[in-house]
Amino acid sequence: MTKGRTQTRDASYMREAIRIARKGLGRVSPNPMVGALVVRGETIVGRGYHRDFGGPHAEVNALNDAKKQTTGATLYVTLEPCSHYGKTPPCVDLIIEREIGCVVVGTMDPNPAVGGTGIRNLKDRGVDVAVGILENECRRLNEAFFKFHERGIPLVTLKMAQSLDGRIATASGDSQWISSPDSLKLAHRLRATHDSVMVGIGTVISDDPSLTVRLVKGKNPLRVVVDSRLRIPLSSKLLSDGNASHTIVLTTDRANPGHMQQIENLGARVLSIKRDPHGEVDMEGALRRLASEGIMSVLVEGGAGLATSFLKAGLIDKLILVIGPKIIGKGVETVGDLGISDLNQALGWSVEKTRKVGEDLVIVARPDY
Amino acid sequence: MTKGRTQTRDASYMREAIRIARKGLGRVSPNPMVGALVVRGETIVGRGYHRDFGGPHAEVNALNDAKKQTTGATLYVTLEPCSHYGKTPPCVDLIIEREIGCVVVGTMDPNPAVGGTGIRNLKDRGVDVAVGILENECRRLNEAFFKFHERGIPLVTLKMAQSLDGRIATASGDSQWISSPDSLKLAHRLRATHDSVMVGIGTVISDDPSLTVRLVKGKNPLRVVVDSRLRIPLSSKLLSDGNASHTIVLTTDRANPGHMQQIENLGARVLSIKRDPHGEVDMEGALRRLASEGIMSVLVEGGAGLATSFLKAGLIDKLILVIGPKIIGKGVETVGDLGISDLNQALGWSVEKTRKVGEDLVIVARPDY
Repeated sequence: MTKGRTQTRDASYMREAIRIARKGLGRVSPNPMVGALVVRGETIVGRGYHRDFGGPHAEVNALNDAKKQTTGATLYVTLEPCSHYGKTPPCVDLIIEREIGCVVVGTMDPNPAVGGTGIRNLKDRGVDVAVGILENECRRLNEAFFKFHERGIPLVTLKMAQSLDGRIATASGDSQWISSPDSLKLAHRLRATHDSVMVGIGTVISDDPSLTVRLVKGKNPLRVVVDSRLRIPLSSKLLSDGNASHTIVLTTDRANPGHMQQIENLGARVLSIKRDPHGEVDMEGALRRLASEGIMSVLVEGGAGLATSFLKAGLIDKLILVIGPKIIGKGVETVGDLGISDLNQALGWSVEKTRKVGEDLVIVARPDY
Repeated sequence: MTKGRTQTRDASYMREAIRIARKGLGRVSPNPMVGALVVRGETIVGRGYHRDFGGPHAEVNALNDAKKQTTGATLYVTLEPCSHYGKTPPCVDLIIEREIGCVVVGTMDPNPAVGGTGIRNLKDRGVDVAVGILENECRRLNEAFFKFHERGIPLVTLKMAQSLDGRIATASGDSQWISSPDSLKLAHRLRATHDSVMVGIGTVISDDPSLTVRLVKGKNPLRVVVDSRLRIPLSSKLLSDGNASHTIVLTTDRANPGHMQQIENLGARVLSIKRDPHGEVDMEGALRRLASEGIMSVLVEGGAGLATSFLKAGLIDKLILVIGPKIIGKGVETVGDLGISDLNQALGWSVEKTRKVGEDLVIVARPDY
């Protein structure tokens, strides 16, 4: 280990690099969030993170921030530095040029085409390299990016809002204001940090949502509708609000070609996905198709039918359950029939965290599978 | 204000008195939990709490603990000292005898027959008295005791265990192990700290529970079954486990007198309560009847029918919702029809706290009404 480094100090610097990396949240996709520190002795002399898609990498910002104090210093970076020309020149070259003595890397690049080459390159050119410091945390920082590159499908987050007793509406269908204004802000923040937001056609027909980011600052995600028989009304906001080019409708060969043409004339795209055994859009097929469009993350907003399909298919990576502190009694259920009769077949989750958002309770959980 | 006292120090001593009062949890009912401190200058010279029903009061224990250092000292006590002969002599007399200079009282005694007389008595005999320090916290310490004395009905806590999606069983009725072993312990701890535990006849017939305290130390609560038509099987554990004298069956005039006699022959009691408009046991009538038996707290354990009746009647003071991190989909719902069609009629709650118990999430909430 390079002079002055200890496991504890490595972890503490890497934690700081992760913290500053998060400042790029919602701004760098499809690039990953990356943070970097330049450390001399026990002093942090440079800090940097990847600020904007296409802009300079975290390493570049940290090295520039360190000015002339880079010679023999240690560079901490959450993700393996690049060694290829992309939108910017290779970071490895700059690291060599600035005479960094040691590079501590959180985790390797998951992209099979480039993963490992940055590290190999640095070693070949005489730089000390350590890899795998706070590796899980560094992967979690960019979990969509990792899943996309490693498994070829986007990260799927299911957001559901329900009452304490698991209802999303009264028996008569009244579903407004289950969640508080603070939770609505959270919902918009989630949209702004996902590449795409997905709803079922039922929700489009009943609620006519615009699925844009309004209550917080941030960029609008791509809007995706799952619509096996292509029933989406031409007058729906997703097609008529002037941003139809941000709308993708996923359908099957059951779609009417004339209607498809009309939708495309409005500027939206219609993608035909293979049918599942019930004649509906095959969910895994849909995710792979979205990945081929470069979509790394999908926020599934509902309704209950779409949520149920995803749960049944075991395709949810993360559940965000917003519970409004109400009891409704008989009403519309959050999750429909999953075909479960034995309780030991029930889908198991691990609660990762809970917090109050305004009056509501927000539970973040991960599937046990 | 007596020399040396400040608001901050009063609050801090009272908080300590509340903390030690809680050691009597589950042991003093129908007496309240009480804590007391004797303070000289800035030193706590005596501590005491009410340990057991019928035993010496907190003030007595604190004064004895302070030995000879009581003259001119300040006594902090969470509840107004008694001035009457009960199971023990009046505390007021001992306070005078030990020459306490000032008594700081958390809250007055809620019993209309005695409330205020202890305080008046102390003042009449020349002792400085301050009342209402951390009053809400001191009332909350014994909330069942206060509700019982002030409103003539027991405190009602509804405990429900459900999945993330608000189900208590699969569609086929499989309901075992929704909650984890840690939550089962919590359930037993709740039983041990309530005067009574109540279930509906449906639960008795389907689950045949014994409703005793087994997984933790503590005394068994009175067991109450709501059984409008007196259908309880003579073979049910509540009647046949040797503790039938700890069982009360609440019924109506729809009960069969012969069956009633057989139940009473087993040692249980059957109480006839007036019918509600649906011919079922009137819930408020049931609570008043239990109050007349000296029951200050009721833990409603289910099933869904009983929970729904209590919720509909607006008789729940506190909700303890145990959420097992599972998703079941179509199944048996936690809460049945409350007759709510507009979402603004939904029952509103305030989440008081949430915590993880093993794998489960426990939400404690209070009704907004």
